Amino acid sequence: MSDDLLRTLADEREIEQLMYRYIDRVDANDPEGAAGCFAEDGIGVYWGEYRGQVAIAERLGTILDAFSATSHHLSNLMVRLEGDRATAQSYVYAFHRTVGAHEQLHVWGRWIDELVRRPQGWRFARREVRLVGRVGSHPSSIEEDRNLVGHPGRLIR
Amino acid sequence: MSDDLLRTLADEREIEQLMYRYIDRVDANDPEGAAGCFAEDGIGVYWGEYRGQVAIAERLGTILDAFSATSHHLSNLMVRLEGDRATAQSYVYAFHRTVGAHEQLHVWGRWIDELVRRPQGWRFARREVRLVGRVGSHPSSIEEDRNLVGHPGRLIR
Amino acid sequence: MSDDLLRTLADEREIEQLMYRYIDRVDANDPEGAAGCFAEDGIGVYWGEYRGQVAIAERLGTILDAFSATSHHLSNLMVRLEGDRATAQSYVYAFHRTVGAHEQLHVWGRWIDELVRRPQGWRFARREVRLVGRVGSHPSSIEEDRNLVGHPGRLIR
Repeated sequence: MSDDLLRTLADEREIEQLMYRYIDRVDANDPEGAAGCFAEDGIGVYWGEYRGQVAIAERLGTILDAFSATSHHLSNLMVRLEGDRATAQSYVYAFHRTVGAHEQLHVWGRWIDELVRRPQGWRFARREVRLVGRVGSHPSSIEEDRNLVGHPGRLIR
Repeated sequence: MSDDLLRTLADEREIEQLMYRYIDRVDANDPEGAAGCFAEDGIGVYWGEYRGQVAIAERLGTILDAFSATSHHLSNLMVRLEGDRATAQSYVYAFHRTVGAHEQLHVWGRWIDELVRRPQGWRFARREVRLVGRVGSHPSSIEEDRNLVGHPGRLIR
Repeated sequence: MSDDLLRTLADEREIEQLMYRYIDRVDANDPEGAAGCFAEDGIGVYWGEYRGQVAIAERLGTILDAFSATSHHLSNLMVRLEGDRATAQSYVYAFHRTVGAHEQLHVWGRWIDELVRRPQGWRFARREVRLVGRVGSHPSSIEEDRNLVGHPGRLIR
């Protein structure tokens, strides 16, 4: 029992650290480093599905090209372990400064993740960004209505 | 010693996860789910004291009625365990979008908590929200002076 | 192995709690309390280097004098343990309200830390603040260009 509990705490910590490494690489303007946090056949859902580290790095690079600085702050991480697989939900607030215009973009969202344990450690099998709110005008063509899907499972009362 | 340390880490993690579950239910517009994170006779202090899960759910529902989206981001959790009871302080930043007007409200505050261990796990015995700052106009009648009590124990120098 | 893992988790938690205690003391307008989180000969880098708890408290006091409220929210903590020493990177978003003018200042940055284990616990050997972004006018003479050094190791692509 005690060993199982310790293993659970360690797995959750490794998954948390994977998410921080991903963010550190994104904010370092290193899309290849961020894509390296995915499994080889992992899927990144960034307003469209991108499969594999090459496609994910390319997509992230296109997004990052618009910004001279980004800062992604993760919180509220909930992990559900199932052996060598896991699912997770976390919150993100992100600060962005746009290239040239020096305008700021602020977004609030969720990361909905599926993870898989590889010999080298935990990796993203699927990572989806869902937006809850936004302040500032995004320089790309992403449309407001399409992205503000809100909190997962938000109820109508 | 080693077992005590592991038990401490596990208790702190369970309390952290209780707080994330509470937030997830609030942001899912599910006041009953959030109130279920309290002990049966728990007290929620949301600008006034509300005792028991029914009264807490009703109060949370009234607050949530004003918003089409909320996003509560917890950080800086400090827990003090005392057997089957605990106290905690955590930081919250919360994003809100108002119903209809689509205006944004941003608040910064503290959660001051008392917790109790039940057979099903840790629950809130008492949870109080204290505001430190606010941007945007709140649609309800809550008054500025009454709520911006600031950081707990803030010193005058 | 199991004991080592538990010790690692406990060390990381102690370092995390040190950071939260530091923040709690800053936001309580208690510069001496915050400085007490440093080793006796620790160095605080707040736009200039300050060595020792007395110099650090004085510097923090000068900074805090400008604000009637502050709220520092830490996230994304990554710790690298090396026996009785450690290095760490964490993210901070900070809300400030200025004295008198009641204007708000928002900053996004990084804490880059070196830590050392003392008989009483982990302490900061060196703590440096690096700014990534800012909204609102800072009331002091700190200059924009000098401080917005950005994310550590940010790449040019």
